[in-house]
Amino acid sequence: MSKNASAINEIQAFLGERLNTSAAVRALHGQNEAHYPEMPPEAVAFPNSTAEVSEIVKICAKHRCPIIPWGTGTSLEGHALPVQGGITVSLQNMSAVLEVLPEDLLAVVQPGLTREALNKDLRATGLFFPVDPGANASLGGMAATRASGTTAVRYGTMKENIRALEVVLADGRIIRTGSRAKKSSTGYDLTKLFVGSEGTLGIITEMTLELQGQPEAIAAAVCDFDDIESAINTVIMAVQMGVPIARMELVDGLSIKAINAYSKLSYPEKPHLFMEFHGSEVAVKDQSETMREISADFQGGDFQWSTRSEERNALWAARHNAYYAMKALYPNKRGMATDVCVPISKLAQAITETIADLDAHGVSGMIIGHAGDGNYHSTLFVDPDQPDELALHLKLAHRMAERGLALGGTVSGEHGIGVGKQKFMAAEHGDAVSVMADIKRSFDPDNIMNPGKLVPMN
Amino acid sequence: MSKNASAINEIQAFLGERLNTSAAVRALHGQNEAHYPEMPPEAVAFPNSTAEVSEIVKICAKHRCPIIPWGTGTSLEGHALPVQGGITVSLQNMSAVLEVLPEDLLAVVQPGLTREALNKDLRATGLFFPVDPGANASLGGMAATRASGTTAVRYGTMKENIRALEVVLADGRIIRTGSRAKKSSTGYDLTKLFVGSEGTLGIITEMTLELQGQPEAIAAAVCDFDDIESAINTVIMAVQMGVPIARMELVDGLSIKAINAYSKLSYPEKPHLFMEFHGSEVAVKDQSETMREISADFQGGDFQWSTRSEERNALWAARHNAYYAMKALYPNKRGMATDVCVPISKLAQAITETIADLDAHGVSGMIIGHAGDGNYHSTLFVDPDQPDELALHLKLAHRMAERGLALGGTVSGEHGIGVGKQKFMAAEHGDAVSVMADIKRSFDPDNIMNPGKLVPMN
Repeated sequence: MSKNASAINEIQAFLGERLNTSAAVRALHGQNEAHYPEMPPEAVAFPNSTAEVSEIVKICAKHRCPIIPWGTGTSLEGHALPVQGGITVSLQNMSAVLEVLPEDLLAVVQPGLTREALNKDLRATGLFFPVDPGANASLGGMAATRASGTTAVRYGTMKENIRALEVVLADGRIIRTGSRAKKSSTGYDLTKLFVGSEGTLGIITEMTLELQGQPEAIAAAVCDFDDIESAINTVIMAVQMGVPIARMELVDGLSIKAINAYSKLSYPEKPHLFMEFHGSEVAVKDQSETMREISADFQGGDFQWSTRSEERNALWAARHNAYYAMKALYPNKRGMATDVCVPISKLAQAITETIADLDAHGVSGMIIGHAGDGNYHSTLFVDPDQPDELALHLKLAHRMAERGLALGGTVSGEHGIGVGKQKFMAAEHGDAVSVMADIKRSFDPDNIMNPGKLVPMN
Repeated sequence: MSKNASAINEIQAFLGERLNTSAAVRALHGQNEAHYPEMPPEAVAFPNSTAEVSEIVKICAKHRCPIIPWGTGTSLEGHALPVQGGITVSLQNMSAVLEVLPEDLLAVVQPGLTREALNKDLRATGLFFPVDPGANASLGGMAATRASGTTAVRYGTMKENIRALEVVLADGRIIRTGSRAKKSSTGYDLTKLFVGSEGTLGIITEMTLELQGQPEAIAAAVCDFDDIESAINTVIMAVQMGVPIARMELVDGLSIKAINAYSKLSYPEKPHLFMEFHGSEVAVKDQSETMREISADFQGGDFQWSTRSEERNALWAARHNAYYAMKALYPNKRGMATDVCVPISKLAQAITETIADLDAHGVSGMIIGHAGDGNYHSTLFVDPDQPDELALHLKLAHRMAERGLALGGTVSGEHGIGVGKQKFMAAEHGDAVSVMADIKRSFDPDNIMNPGKLVPMN
């Protein structure tokens, strides 16, 4: 019997039918939302508790069987693919809100909980969890990939919004990192080390999340621009002036066309900024007045401002559905997400060079950006069964990443490395990659925790 | 010749007189601002460049000679004491502003630069670096202890304000962490791992710091309260309502008395909140109006508000001099700083229990707090040559730390562990301490980087 089969047998002995080896369940956990080939794990475990996760890991450690954590499978870089075989550990049964501490603006949750479920649960408290990557991802998965999204410009990424963790290590030990205090100077910041570690150092089994009070007032605004530089320059000025805007999304003309068709809207087919303001009534008015002035300085068009929640919801639904709107134009292709983030002073250059490169190859790539953070996505659509087409699109995506590095940026602002971007690790981090590999070896000497992801271990 | 003497000889051969073994220079680098005994290093090196730091570390690694980094020596937990002997590496010659990137709100600096020198250098740019621990510390030292201070409630701690680092590792290798991009999901967050590592994992030789635009308007306010609970409840309400206040300092009645005497002021001898507001004219008025209302709800006294910079500067000078004001009351004693941080809901309980404990022992401890963060200091004054007095004060400080832990907090909000608080590491972190020790061994197998600090290595 193979080592993995031995581990599966032993886990089945204590989990019973919560260790599933059916083809259907395995296939479901071998999928991904990007262009990577499907790859079912050998079994899927459904633990109900941290103690069960620990027991599963101990058995896998004994047999050196790979373990792949699974939240909702919405990763865009193949994070949950069992590239070296092994057992997928689904956290779907561990999705409780364990405690809400309204006075401390904290919630203690299990990793399988999705962000929308948490916010629904919080509704009566007047609090919300601000990180919004678009997909209704699990909070554990969002932590593991250091996710962010449209609101990071105001509220930060998962890195800034997690106060404490419980983690099962590669030998099955359970540790706690951080505390309920807002800040601390007592040792290495293990919380921040696990956030973004993509399951390679341990499995997050509990999270203490920082919440925000629902703002007294929320307003949204939309403004179109004649060219993408003007829209980006508006963003740069807003960042430099420190306007505490809650969302500031760049949507290019091609994306607007797709959004109009998909969401039955009629925005002018030009680059737009979609904005949102949070604060007191006075602050929201003050911020949006400032943004109206900045937009006008860059020849922005009609500045459409609204405090009506239905108009606001329609706006953000259209923005969140942008990916599906684009995908609808390419029904038989798969999305290839790119995720470059550059210093804000380089954003216009990065985006205009990217558009020029795509145009030169006759490829249409729609550009959407969390512009206030210097982060943008150009989603390419490709038929993975057409080798020439796949190669061209991969080459263009590769050049976007290299362009980001050349401008002092990073190859991933929020999607992570997974299997897709390991080839850039040395270019981005130099010798620091060997330090990451040392950390990985120190935490996981037998390389069983989501092996083949994040850090090249050569 | 001892191994350390061999290292000193070898370093002297290439640094010349920038390797100093004079009694005076050694004594200067054996001091500390707390109650720990003086302890001169065997030599002090003054490198001029990262390459020289790397060379020094390589020689020390060869001879297994301890290396202690030195900024300005303003640590309060004996971080720079050579408790296992060895060579102190002063970064004072590495104090340049290497580059200011106003469009990206970044500055690249060397670690020996002090925060006041940086802000003086930035004056013409309209930008500033917000972290303010009171002392005019070196920015490298502030990074190494994860310092914060009065403005953290709005701008965060050193952890939130460093984008990238250059670090010399224990084998002399030079690595870079992070990039100029505002966010990234590409690997373990090494920047955050070095911030707060107290020189035990490597020596920071360059830092990319995040700057803020000078706010359009700044206002300050002072309000007194009948009791400390009312002042704290005002803070809790402000935090829960999300008022983006820039400073919110709690100063108890005893401290006010000391401040009045020292700074020739006449505040009522009652608990006070010292506040500062940053933003647009409209935002500053809006925030202070909100604070006036909240203070009134908790029976606050006269809410003295001012936008005049001379009044504001006098206020913050008085606050920053509070330690010296207290010390002036005890001219022959040494300060023993405490630094507990608790979840904000527990702040009133933590402080009132602390005051009761001090009162019960006839010890007067003034309480000053970065209340918006749940962080407070009770400074005790002690004659280290009186064993009974020292023992009593240490016991009281110990109980403050334990009280903080019992309330879900941390034994240090911003001063760090150094040599003084290692005894609490297991109580605060449990098994996670062994993970920190593993990280230390992975980075520094021969334990030469500031040995005897932060992580107990038993």
